[in-house]
Amino acid sequence: MTEQLATNITWHEGEVSHAQRNQSLGQKGATLWMTGLSASGKSTIAVALEQVLLQQGKHAYRLDGDNIRHGLNKNLGFSAEDRAENIRRIGEVSKLFADAGILSIASFISPYTADRDLVRKLHEDAGVAFIEVYVDLPLEVAESRDPKGLYKKARAGEIKGFTGIDDPYEAPTNPELHLKTHEMSVEDSVRALLECLQDNNLLEA
Amino acid sequence: MTEQLATNITWHEGEVSHAQRNQSLGQKGATLWMTGLSASGKSTIAVALEQVLLQQGKHAYRLDGDNIRHGLNKNLGFSAEDRAENIRRIGEVSKLFADAGILSIASFISPYTADRDLVRKLHEDAGVAFIEVYVDLPLEVAESRDPKGLYKKARAGEIKGFTGIDDPYEAPTNPELHLKTHEMSVEDSVRALLECLQDNNLLEA
Repeated sequence: MTEQLATNITWHEGEVSHAQRNQSLGQKGATLWMTGLSASGKSTIAVALEQVLLQQGKHAYRLDGDNIRHGLNKNLGFSAEDRAENIRRIGEVSKLFADAGILSIASFISPYTADRDLVRKLHEDAGVAFIEVYVDLPLEVAESRDPKGLYKKARAGEIKGFTGIDDPYEAPTNPELHLKTHEMSVEDSVRALLECLQDNNLLEA
Repeated sequence: MTEQLATNITWHEGEVSHAQRNQSLGQKGATLWMTGLSASGKSTIAVALEQVLLQQGKHAYRLDGDNIRHGLNKNLGFSAEDRAENIRRIGEVSKLFADAGILSIASFISPYTADRDLVRKLHEDAGVAFIEVYVDLPLEVAESRDPKGLYKKARAGEIKGFTGIDDPYEAPTNPELHLKTHEMSVEDSVRALLECLQDNNLLEA
């Protein structure tokens, strides 16, 4: 192996291209941007989708609150300015993953149209695919599920500026995919996402 | 294909792990952090390394000024605070790429030991490999090459706080790899990097 490493080193002018990285991974890097209310099912669907893609030999990575809020964006709060910067940074990072050939699955409430549109534009300007996925669960259903007790706290005034309670959720008007998760199983949603990826020719290089 | 997608959707509790993503890509995700003076050869070596890794069926991605300063970090300047935040964000993003199973090649001057040590700690805390690579070219050689004319501008006082001229470069004291690029060809450096990756068992899952 050392022999091989030592004798087989050549390269050309210029950088590895997005197309070459796609070719190497057998897919097209893209961002799947999952937006929706707290408790709408974004993370559950994203986790399942990542697993199913891996089974099919595809390469995905999830960006979510767990690996962003405690890391890259740990110095951001919840002011209007910080919320916009939160989504901008996530959009930039997701764009880098997509450029690297990865199917990047970003799941964040991302309630404002302007912020999502900015992320879409970042991707368009870089020539990488952006798939907006509206994870649509009626507020009353999300609130009745309330797995983390956040809606209850928001109603009690213990959390301020909570999306759907005292802060707006601006629903996407023209998303690439609209998942009505009140009427669909997680399996249905994953199937719809796979079909969307396939329809956009993202599952082959 | 639609048939297959529709019938073959199963997943388990829990998330895809770092180890599973490594397995899928046939390597171990890691960060190669290339630090050194302006014009020391960081980018040239990084570009060549990425190509050679791709030829060997490995998956790498470069983070550098081109895709970071105009994107994720475009809202940062060159104050001491902003320089630290610049490296912190890059470190967080590189850590995410490494966690995703990618060989992330970050090439930035990153002159301060404290900033680099913070990035190392981010990786250690996340359980992903961090390889510090000191791209070591004597200042007088870097200045004599000066491909972008930056040293000349710094000497003329047109650029303030330029590393090596009126701002310090704190050399790594214990890097995983020390490339003396004055005495090595690019090929030598790429070979040394490949051997370092191999010695750290990063080229297999």
